[in-house]
Amino acid sequence: MEKLECLFCRKKFDINVFSPFCPSCQEPLLVSYDAKKRTFSPENRLALEKFLDFLPLASINKNLSLGEGNTPLVELTRLKEKLGLSPVFAKMEMVNPTHSFKDRGTSVAVQKAVAMGFKRIGTVSTGNMAISTAAYGARAGLQTFVLLKEKTPRENLLAAAVHNPIIVEVKGDYGELFYQSLRSGKKFNIYFMNSVDPFRIEGYKVTGFEIFTQLGMVAPQTILVPVSAAGHLIGLIRAFLDLRKEGFIQEIPVFVGVQPNGCSPLALAFSSGKKRFEKFSKVQTICHSISNPNPPGGNIVLKLIRENKGIILAVSDEEILEAQKLLAEYEGIFCQPESAVTLAALIKLKKNDELRNKGKAVLVLTGSGLKRLEIFDYEKMVIQESSLSQLEERIASLIEKGSCLD
Amino acid sequence: MEKLECLFCRKKFDINVFSPFCPSCQEPLLVSYDAKKRTFSPENRLALEKFLDFLPLASINKNLSLGEGNTPLVELTRLKEKLGLSPVFAKMEMVNPTHSFKDRGTSVAVQKAVAMGFKRIGTVSTGNMAISTAAYGARAGLQTFVLLKEKTPRENLLAAAVHNPIIVEVKGDYGELFYQSLRSGKKFNIYFMNSVDPFRIEGYKVTGFEIFTQLGMVAPQTILVPVSAAGHLIGLIRAFLDLRKEGFIQEIPVFVGVQPNGCSPLALAFSSGKKRFEKFSKVQTICHSISNPNPPGGNIVLKLIRENKGIILAVSDEEILEAQKLLAEYEGIFCQPESAVTLAALIKLKKNDELRNKGKAVLVLTGSGLKRLEIFDYEKMVIQESSLSQLEERIASLIEKGSCLD
Repeated sequence: MEKLECLFCRKKFDINVFSPFCPSCQEPLLVSYDAKKRTFSPENRLALEKFLDFLPLASINKNLSLGEGNTPLVELTRLKEKLGLSPVFAKMEMVNPTHSFKDRGTSVAVQKAVAMGFKRIGTVSTGNMAISTAAYGARAGLQTFVLLKEKTPRENLLAAAVHNPIIVEVKGDYGELFYQSLRSGKKFNIYFMNSVDPFRIEGYKVTGFEIFTQLGMVAPQTILVPVSAAGHLIGLIRAFLDLRKEGFIQEIPVFVGVQPNGCSPLALAFSSGKKRFEKFSKVQTICHSISNPNPPGGNIVLKLIRENKGIILAVSDEEILEAQKLLAEYEGIFCQPESAVTLAALIKLKKNDELRNKGKAVLVLTGSGLKRLEIFDYEKMVIQESSLSQLEERIASLIEKGSCLD
Repeated sequence: MEKLECLFCRKKFDINVFSPFCPSCQEPLLVSYDAKKRTFSPENRLALEKFLDFLPLASINKNLSLGEGNTPLVELTRLKEKLGLSPVFAKMEMVNPTHSFKDRGTSVAVQKAVAMGFKRIGTVSTGNMAISTAAYGARAGLQTFVLLKEKTPRENLLAAAVHNPIIVEVKGDYGELFYQSLRSGKKFNIYFMNSVDPFRIEGYKVTGFEIFTQLGMVAPQTILVPVSAAGHLIGLIRAFLDLRKEGFIQEIPVFVGVQPNGCSPLALAFSSGKKRFEKFSKVQTICHSISNPNPPGGNIVLKLIRENKGIILAVSDEEILEAQKLLAEYEGIFCQPESAVTLAALIKLKKNDELRNKGKAVLVLTGSGLKRLEIFDYEKMVIQESSLSQLEERIASLIEKGSCLD
């Protein structure tokens, strides 16, 4: 049985979380307990190394990696109960070196860039992808170009700028900039690893393999993923196609691609049965980082989703913010609104009784809520006040009243 | 050999990163390659489960975990070369569910709280610990109290407030609030898991065990750790004391505790050979989250550091900011200034030739730079401008000029 112990006088005490100080020495007490039989094993494999056989890389250069991947898969039992869901899990992609799923793709593309002898890389992005590419470019010692659209708010660039890339704001059509970057790349031998780069997409497969191994070598019944340019969803579907091809699974999970109502070109094409999407005209959503009106991987995703009995749907900003709040208040998970679209979609599918099965669902949470703190109005926070002498009285009344969680 | 393939027309092409689209279909190309022999194994063990034998917990309740730990250990080869260091590694504690090392301690304390039947927990903090405790409290469905000092900037509280704890701002002496919280906790059966809580400290041991297994069952020669209340450093030292006791290692690493000059009560006591520290009077540093003038674990750390031939030293805010910049620009790692103190200390020890060995050093990077973006002046960022039509010309001149990394 464990005790608390003072390192100074070596006296031992029973566990008491209210008195973690030694009554004679006034020093903090530490836990003391008897040895059990203890074992260890060495462990420092990168996610890319674990799944190297499924990647288009001959070997992994650890000096180019920031330890991306190996992210947690967390079961959401409180939300399941509150919302009357089947078992649901969160794949915690904000737990990556630059706090988003982009690191999965950037890591593979940078491995490839260095293997191919590139000295310069780049990307067209203002958000998570700019941060991730700037970080991995710095890690690899590559000159890194980040191309931006006009009037990008300067404060959004800080987390990329700390890595000292060359940042260029380009006046003109942002969609065209994507294709211009590839032409300029060819001319100057700069590898622009943009949203649907084939090697970036391969990196996203690793997330799928991790979900499979974390569930104990079983595929979930449903996987929900935010969709913008569509590279992420393509990569995840490909992971399970690989697993089926190799005989690890019989059936592909039902993939649910989710867009915000205010930028939903693929959801519109899907619901109207079209093979190809049309450019979305009036973008209006809080989900800036999944608001691509002309997703370069859109037609591939429509094809893959149809072939594999998936769904693409859209949810409102209100539903998204409510889902973000539920994850934070019931499960302690603070993700971007762009990630919370997945829970909003699950709730909507459940309400409409549209889920064709009752098995396990996985929400792929793509990025950290820390990156979008500006959507909260901190003046509306409820902060209680007390003096030190009245603290006990104050706590008593707050316990009675309860928080919103009670 | 791998090729690129169009999913629509099924044509295959050689790898060309500048033309990742099918010339006939205009759709993105994907990587296509032959099957190799592929193997997998199930894998979903929490860090707490891996090292359960060393923790004061009978079992782990997965529903209380957010998948904390299992953070990367990344070798810093570019910084090693630039600074002429011995091998140096970063332990990436910002890659945790709430982006700081606090999750390690909170997770163990919350496991204990639930096992002991508590319905309410709390903490005294305005920073990383408040965020972590609020998140784990929400995950566990516990009513959570966060006690703050007067005039805490509201925007600092957002990342904790999203989890809907009860936040109380308390007028009066902040040091006294720490002890008052424990008294109030006893009265109302609230487990206040503050900075030097014995179970919180046990959680920090897991970081030490991971470093040991990630280096291949070998202890590094030096471990550098920021020091504030001192719980983190106590936990890390205890991990290696456990390892020595169990016969896994012969010698404890040289632990280097680092404080900012502007709040360095322990560095002062260490350099003047005192057994006990004196409260620091004029706190003045950018490192807010390691600026405890009266660290409750300070005397224990002085004792442990002396017994195990460690060092406590202080570095200036200038040295800290320079170290933060070096990590971001040379290794792609964006940490808080409070974490960069470790690299600043390593540089200082190297300069003074004070490191008694030439072996591996580990910097424990405690939190994400995203949490302290306000220290950067975004108006000073260098952003290039270009029109779409002049982009190639612009890129040509920027390549010639080079970035600061060239």
